[in-house]
Amino acid sequence: MRQSQLFTKTRKEVPSDEIAKNAKLLIQAGYVHKEMAGVYSFLPLGLRVMNKIIGIIREEMNAVGGQELHLTALQDPNVWQKSGRWSDEAVDNWFKTKVKVGGEVGLAFTHEEPLTRIMKDHIRSYKDLPFSAYQFQTKFRNETRAKSGILRGREFLMKDMYSFSRHEKEHEVFYKKAIDAYKKIFTRSGIGEETYLTFSSGGSFSKYSHEFQTLTLAGEDTIHLCEKCSVAVNEEIIKDQSACPECGNKKLAKKTSVEIGNIFTLGTRFSEVLDLAYLDEKGEKQFVFMGSYGIGPGRIMGTIVELLSDEKGIVWPAAIAPFQVHLISIIGANGEDVRKEGDGLYERLMKKGIDVLYDDRDIRPGEKFADSDLIGIPTRVVISEKAIKSGRLEVKGRKTDTVQMLSEPDFLKTLS
Amino acid sequence: MRQSQLFTKTRKEVPSDEIAKNAKLLIQAGYVHKEMAGVYSFLPLGLRVMNKIIGIIREEMNAVGGQELHLTALQDPNVWQKSGRWSDEAVDNWFKTKVKVGGEVGLAFTHEEPLTRIMKDHIRSYKDLPFSAYQFQTKFRNETRAKSGILRGREFLMKDMYSFSRHEKEHEVFYKKAIDAYKKIFTRSGIGEETYLTFSSGGSFSKYSHEFQTLTLAGEDTIHLCEKCSVAVNEEIIKDQSACPECGNKKLAKKTSVEIGNIFTLGTRFSEVLDLAYLDEKGEKQFVFMGSYGIGPGRIMGTIVELLSDEKGIVWPAAIAPFQVHLISIIGANGEDVRKEGDGLYERLMKKGIDVLYDDRDIRPGEKFADSDLIGIPTRVVISEKAIKSGRLEVKGRKTDTVQMLSEPDFLKTLS
Repeated sequence: MRQSQLFTKTRKEVPSDEIAKNAKLLIQAGYVHKEMAGVYSFLPLGLRVMNKIIGIIREEMNAVGGQELHLTALQDPNVWQKSGRWSDEAVDNWFKTKVKVGGEVGLAFTHEEPLTRIMKDHIRSYKDLPFSAYQFQTKFRNETRAKSGILRGREFLMKDMYSFSRHEKEHEVFYKKAIDAYKKIFTRSGIGEETYLTFSSGGSFSKYSHEFQTLTLAGEDTIHLCEKCSVAVNEEIIKDQSACPECGNKKLAKKTSVEIGNIFTLGTRFSEVLDLAYLDEKGEKQFVFMGSYGIGPGRIMGTIVELLSDEKGIVWPAAIAPFQVHLISIIGANGEDVRKEGDGLYERLMKKGIDVLYDDRDIRPGEKFADSDLIGIPTRVVISEKAIKSGRLEVKGRKTDTVQMLSEPDFLKTLS
Repeated sequence: MRQSQLFTKTRKEVPSDEIAKNAKLLIQAGYVHKEMAGVYSFLPLGLRVMNKIIGIIREEMNAVGGQELHLTALQDPNVWQKSGRWSDEAVDNWFKTKVKVGGEVGLAFTHEEPLTRIMKDHIRSYKDLPFSAYQFQTKFRNETRAKSGILRGREFLMKDMYSFSRHEKEHEVFYKKAIDAYKKIFTRSGIGEETYLTFSSGGSFSKYSHEFQTLTLAGEDTIHLCEKCSVAVNEEIIKDQSACPECGNKKLAKKTSVEIGNIFTLGTRFSEVLDLAYLDEKGEKQFVFMGSYGIGPGRIMGTIVELLSDEKGIVWPAAIAPFQVHLISIIGANGEDVRKEGDGLYERLMKKGIDVLYDDRDIRPGEKFADSDLIGIPTRVVISEKAIKSGRLEVKGRKTDTVQMLSEPDFLKTLS
């Protein structure tokens, strides 16, 4: 798109009410707007990044057979009372609201209960199992602290998947697939190397559950990392599990991290209280064995800003950048030539299906470059009188300082 | 997808707690699940239809230059107090909820206020105008009545666009473009012929605002239709405007309808109270002139079910059907042959990019046909021993009773 049309403007001033680097940079570059503490709107650039992350997650969820649906934010107390999670004593971060015609409803902080109830209409026999369902849906959590920008919100998007299996053995097969899918998601998003499968407390149905923790000082968690196996143990269980669960290594490295995903074996915790059962091969009633699998796309986005940004601004990995190419025209004395060349190149790139942000604004080159570094698109292409004369494009990666002079065909090769 | 994998099951029993036809059929066919009155989850088939409708709307919003963003559900009272819309006396359908650390927030029933505030960071000069921004976002309305299925929800998806112009004249140009875009959306969704541009009360900045009303007895509105001009006048203003505003025709036909879209000239109603201003060509401060443009994708979906369904079930227009083709295998005595042919045809159609629901289940043909009619996919293809022997496919449209025997290439031609 043409930057002259993009309604958001960058700002030089750092927002004074933000502590977290991710929030500062994302606001300065025009990706998000802070509505209140822990509540952020996503502006066009921010929505583009979110949609790229959502696209990656969706592909991997579909690849393990997940069926996408969309549950509601408003929650019926009846179903949560049955599971024992309606009262504010049991769950301390509910938002609840009164219904005009009487009664109270909650705003979903997770969706095990309503989805378990839905499945009562659809699961009868062992032949209906196993399967999994997932959604991208807004969660609401009445958090006491909300100072980490988009890393911890009171309202935030979450991908949550739930699996429904006949028994633990069948569940284990899917659980392992989910671990692999999650690893692919973090690798494709550009934070695979800093992200560790972390053993955490398992609840009644499993020795462990698992978190995916990304190393960053901006995180609120502590993990104990086995550098041999590339797995970690979280702070909660380190007393009971002081060695690596995979190799027994006792020299674990203590690190600060942020939890960007988690997976749980739920077992029959919800199916028993909500009576989600099936008839097995012998015609006997059995409770469905469940699992849940969460990722916060906004938390991935915030973590990437924390990890990869530099003193000039954001540095997006190519797979989730809002645009692939930032095309910048330097309008000198001979303005019309540069404008014409820029417009032509912009059209040609768009026709090839390349996402381009085209800075066609009438402002100083220095401002354009500063904006470009702040916004953080992976590849910058400058079109100027000099470039036109040389018949080449001035190409620079966001992370490198070296400028390459490339012909258009050679430049196109670098993108594919 | 293979229907044996789809977790939703159809049901024969009509839901006893639903009055509206759209809710009854959508629940029976497995498109939606009722959580509470006016609150529906969208199951995989339902989400597919919603995404098709969203896709059409997004294309038309992008075509008029709209920039997509995503605002929040939680609302800061400060900004609504300034516009005079925070109190329950001014707005009678707020959901409000307490924040743990103190204070109260609302759940957005619309988004003029927060978006106007956001624009204060991005609009400075006349050069920044005009533009428009839109979103697909959940709205919450604490409705007293919620008996019309997905036509009137307490929680529902809405596409809302807002335009920002220098003055009324510039606004008018965009407003007309928006009318044309809306007409295209309803035509592409399959309800263009039954949908009328309807004049309604205009507020301070305009004589009229406009609704898009679709004729259906399931609607809660009354309009007065000029059959010459294909425009209508709504019940609210018929006393003052008893003739067609376009041709003066006084013979207007009274009809029951549902409002599926509306567009408003907001003028400076919000920009003045929130101080959203720009400097004009003379350096003088002017308030931004705004418009708003809403459509409920779920309401379009529900209206289509009300309008087009028959005694056997739903009838989707091709553009928004969850799948293009319902492939049904009739497994007789020689089961393996039919299964192999069916699997092969399914793979070939998928490879051609055709969305196919493949009923590969081991159930009676009668059940498969009944499900197929209930689900309402436009084209049904049956593969059976008879079909294999004849070397042709048994093809039937959902709305027609005639079956055609077509070769595979001829069948493919009917889809393009």
